[in-house]
Amino acid sequence: MKLKSYLMGTWREGEGEGVPLWDAATGELLARVTAEGLPLREAWAYAWEVGGKALLALDFQERGRRLRALGQYLSERKEELYRLYATTGGTRRDAWYDVDGGIGVLYSYAGLARHLPEGNLLLEDEYQPLAKDLSFQGRHVLGPRGGATLQINAFNFPVWGLLEKFAPAFLAGVPTLAKPATPTAHVAEALARMMLESGLLPEGSFQFVAGGLGDLLEALDYRDSVYFTGSKATADRLRRHAAFQERGALFNAETDSLNAAILGERAGEEELLRLAEEIAQELAIKTGQRCTAIRRVLVPEGRLQALLEATRDRLAALRLGDPREEGVDLGPLASSAQKEEVAKAVEVLKAAGARVFWEHPGRRDGAFFPPTLLLAEDPYAPLLHAVEPFGPVATFFPYRTREEALRLARLGGGMLVATVATPDPEEARFWLLGLSGEVGRLHLLTPRDAHSSTGHGSPLPRLLHGGPGRAGGGEELGGLLSVKRHLARLALQSDPHTLQALLGEHAQGAERPAEVHPFRKTYEELEVGETLVTHRRTVTEADIALFAHLSWDHFYAHTDELAARNSLFGKRVAHGYFVLSAAAGLFVDPAPGPVLANYGLEGLRFLEPVGIGDTLQARLTVKRKRPRDEKTGVVEWDVEVVNQEGKRVAAYTVLTLVQRGRPPQG
Amino acid sequence: MKLKSYLMGTWREGEGEGVPLWDAATGELLARVTAEGLPLREAWAYAWEVGGKALLALDFQERGRRLRALGQYLSERKEELYRLYATTGGTRRDAWYDVDGGIGVLYSYAGLARHLPEGNLLLEDEYQPLAKDLSFQGRHVLGPRGGATLQINAFNFPVWGLLEKFAPAFLAGVPTLAKPATPTAHVAEALARMMLESGLLPEGSFQFVAGGLGDLLEALDYRDSVYFTGSKATADRLRRHAAFQERGALFNAETDSLNAAILGERAGEEELLRLAEEIAQELAIKTGQRCTAIRRVLVPEGRLQALLEATRDRLAALRLGDPREEGVDLGPLASSAQKEEVAKAVEVLKAAGARVFWEHPGRRDGAFFPPTLLLAEDPYAPLLHAVEPFGPVATFFPYRTREEALRLARLGGGMLVATVATPDPEEARFWLLGLSGEVGRLHLLTPRDAHSSTGHGSPLPRLLHGGPGRAGGGEELGGLLSVKRHLARLALQSDPHTLQALLGEHAQGAERPAEVHPFRKTYEELEVGETLVTHRRTVTEADIALFAHLSWDHFYAHTDELAARNSLFGKRVAHGYFVLSAAAGLFVDPAPGPVLANYGLEGLRFLEPVGIGDTLQARLTVKRKRPRDEKTGVVEWDVEVVNQEGKRVAAYTVLTLVQRGRPPQG
Repeated sequence: MKLKSYLMGTWREGEGEGVPLWDAATGELLARVTAEGLPLREAWAYAWEVGGKALLALDFQERGRRLRALGQYLSERKEELYRLYATTGGTRRDAWYDVDGGIGVLYSYAGLARHLPEGNLLLEDEYQPLAKDLSFQGRHVLGPRGGATLQINAFNFPVWGLLEKFAPAFLAGVPTLAKPATPTAHVAEALARMMLESGLLPEGSFQFVAGGLGDLLEALDYRDSVYFTGSKATADRLRRHAAFQERGALFNAETDSLNAAILGERAGEEELLRLAEEIAQELAIKTGQRCTAIRRVLVPEGRLQALLEATRDRLAALRLGDPREEGVDLGPLASSAQKEEVAKAVEVLKAAGARVFWEHPGRRDGAFFPPTLLLAEDPYAPLLHAVEPFGPVATFFPYRTREEALRLARLGGGMLVATVATPDPEEARFWLLGLSGEVGRLHLLTPRDAHSSTGHGSPLPRLLHGGPGRAGGGEELGGLLSVKRHLARLALQSDPHTLQALLGEHAQGAERPAEVHPFRKTYEELEVGETLVTHRRTVTEADIALFAHLSWDHFYAHTDELAARNSLFGKRVAHGYFVLSAAAGLFVDPAPGPVLANYGLEGLRFLEPVGIGDTLQARLTVKRKRPRDEKTGVVEWDVEVVNQEGKRVAAYTVLTLVQRGRPPQG
Repeated sequence: MKLKSYLMGTWREGEGEGVPLWDAATGELLARVTAEGLPLREAWAYAWEVGGKALLALDFQERGRRLRALGQYLSERKEELYRLYATTGGTRRDAWYDVDGGIGVLYSYAGLARHLPEGNLLLEDEYQPLAKDLSFQGRHVLGPRGGATLQINAFNFPVWGLLEKFAPAFLAGVPTLAKPATPTAHVAEALARMMLESGLLPEGSFQFVAGGLGDLLEALDYRDSVYFTGSKATADRLRRHAAFQERGALFNAETDSLNAAILGERAGEEELLRLAEEIAQELAIKTGQRCTAIRRVLVPEGRLQALLEATRDRLAALRLGDPREEGVDLGPLASSAQKEEVAKAVEVLKAAGARVFWEHPGRRDGAFFPPTLLLAEDPYAPLLHAVEPFGPVATFFPYRTREEALRLARLGGGMLVATVATPDPEEARFWLLGLSGEVGRLHLLTPRDAHSSTGHGSPLPRLLHGGPGRAGGGEELGGLLSVKRHLARLALQSDPHTLQALLGEHAQGAERPAEVHPFRKTYEELEVGETLVTHRRTVTEADIALFAHLSWDHFYAHTDELAARNSLFGKRVAHGYFVLSAAAGLFVDPAPGPVLANYGLEGLRFLEPVGIGDTLQARLTVKRKRPRDEKTGVVEWDVEVVNQEGKRVAAYTVLTLVQRGRPPQG
């Protein structure tokens, strides 16, 4: 009857009676939750020692592959999670948001591994010369922090919440201890069991604790982090712990915020109706229990009534009921306690001057709370912008000018997300500049995206989730953003040979002559820093003229002696693309070999003009390598083209696909 | 006699008697410092209202220009600062580190404006498609936070410390209130006067307070930040304020840390002597009063004596004295109070088991403290790794294995910087992976960079300055890193037309046909999103053969029918660079016009092979623009080359230089 915790390789049961966990729709007792007496600090040390080492023994690439496999594994078993889901009050659509949303995060982070190297070091920016002779250079590097991460989840998304915190940490190589919220801990426990049964997570890389944390924070220091989703009050209390204030652990908080939806002054009827639909949807999904849901609606005063009515009409058509019944749109709240909280918040808003414009006539028994639209005719009462009913409730505020609307929006003190409905980019610009310090995500609803928007309330794996001020100030998701946040940034300074050896990327000054033409070498045989210096080629007038014929590019600087004299170059010069092509002609080895194709090019700069009679020579250096699949890898090459004076006329990076293993038979 | 503060456009004097400020070398009273009764909270509101608006009315580009001009202005007046400097106990070399170092930061940040756009929005990553038809997309944007920054500086670098915090904030568009440390506040006040007299800083963008902060922190919220340099104890106290814990202001701390220098196991005699020199220099510069100075030295036990003696020999040759005297290498500490602090710390270290190996025989009067080498034969006593004498003192620790040395290094609990002296990249790798979570900068001293290293203790504008744990956990400098930290990140979601209009960068799906060939338009006339769709060209076998002749690139995939059949493409294909060149042939308008030159290319990908008989067409779209100087701007173009099936065969960005103003006469 008690939920178990997975610590140090074993499922364990806490002591004592624990906290009861109820079915939200039926009120049936499902389980009891306690972590009393469990060895949490030992589990933390275990994460460091066992989990951390095991994760770093894999690398970004292998961890990315495992995230993908985990996504597949969970996908095949998601019906089990769907079934459990109804006990939380969630409809099948809510389950889809949570379960499929969570699996989507795993796939998304698996895909990001493509942008990461092998190993556990992520390079930022470029090498920076710190000495004229280049013998001393610097580079920003992100490396392992060495600690672990504690992930404290909210009750509303037991699956997505756990996975969206876990995926970036796992990809970064940081061991996780996940703690679900009690009201939905049984769903999280089922998920944790699946994850562990998959066999994809190295021992110690993922642990799970259902119940309280005891004195665990005493174990944390600057190498550790806590990712928290929940109320601002709890976040503010946790944040004051010495783990964060004195020992430098990272505290990342995602708290409920009073997210705004704003009908623009320039919005037409179409935008008004679309916004009404968006608000109704926000109150319906998870019965309004999303930290990103719309809480405040700002409306030009002349259109307040119209928007209220349009929203009401949409909500009135929805049916409240047990999510297991056919045709139900909204389930109950997650618990009776939750319902009481929402009712209390609504009373505070009413006392602050909001009045009820409309309440849904549906069920009110058990944990059911009807969708409610409030209207604040005096929009400035501070409590209206500070108290959040975490359920299907929104407060509508009239505004006279957009400046007033911006003042009202800012009274929220920081939001996860805001929606502005407007067809007009100029109005959108006002809001972008006005809200840039107020919001983590700004969703602009326009006639052009009304049909395709993913919605106000939906965080996306590749975009930042988090917001300033009341929203907690954290940064989650956002693609690599959250992976980098799990790593430690340092500035590395050394000579180019050492830097190249440590970082696996060519540093200028650390070249080694290639003894065999590099196009004869397989992916494995090629070494970063090996350099081919080619034979030379003198550029003739005929070359330039023929290149103009062949390319059809008759730009005057190449073909018109009179105009070219007044050009930037003062004379006819070779086409830039001729220089590129001639460099390839110098460094390409024609016969079949392991180098299969040039599929791209980066960072090309033409540095000096090339004129008739100039002599070109190319230097081709292996810049860096990364595996692509079992048969091929990507090799990037630094190319420099120099002239007879040794001056660089062009520099760039060529991307090639190179065969792995033994070279092919001629 | 009282130092003044510059608040709300006026130099003001605080009430009360204030704290005395003494000449470090002569003991003469120089000034008194008090901010009592000054309207600090009003000044903070003024920074928001007046300074913030004025800064955003300029933009990244103009603010960059002003930083450069400010650097020049201060450069011309630096002798005045040098003269004042001797009163702080600093030698002329110390003044150079502080004054010229600070001016160097201004120039460095001025140069970074080159990587920034016009306006006040900085785009990150790329557009992200969020709908299949591209009608809904996302983008990470950094925009104004809307607040101000309070910069609390340490006494040791009154000039550099103020400027290294000010420059990134100013470039980002954030108004500064700078507070110097009392012992050197007169130098900072002289600097602040110069900065304000330059006329380069818009009113309200820079304010200055000499003295205490009163209840100023009550005014701060999530749009604000505090950048603090000083002791860990003060940082930990400030950090607990509700401004940070409840209202979400950013607290960035740089605290003194027990930075380590490590002689590697593989180090030879050359590295040993070089490290001795480095340690001696660290104790001499600013008389060891640098938060980045070497405090702990870890040495293979067999070489401990040799390194101690070599370091002693170097230090013994240095002369302590009044920095105004000729031939003086080290001045006194900044104050007698500071000297007492150092003496106390040394006593603690001795009580913890360190013994004095050597003390410099020079002056001990006044604020003079002699360079001191301590030796800790039992290296594990925790206090030895926790107490920092902020002066010319280093403790030497023997180690047996590198694993033990790593354990000792980590006992410091987080450092700003560590130096490892080793000739061996494998040993360097051990330290990089072992210290990545422990240090903000890792300085590898090798035989190849020994002559050119900028030194253990020198933060550089383009590299991160800050470190985890005891070092405060902050991030300063690091080039754009600290500029971005002053901005607010948000995820913007909308349709491509709106995104393009707001962000000034072409979003796919928001193209407009160009009515005139874009090469006929000036920088100002070109509009982001305008698109030229060219005529077409059918690729012939002759084209491929001729391109091979002309480029000399006879790669088999283009020229050898037999081998090409077994290639990735299954047939002979056109050279990638032919496709590039032919695309230019299609979109270039030959006669002289405002488009002056193609100077580079980014992000080229060849997406589909081009075979004999394929027909190519190019689409050229203005991607984004940025001014370069008065006569020219940079225009970037999105280029897509499609084949007869409408499939993209290549996509890339072309960089061109385009004339500003009216087009030139034919």
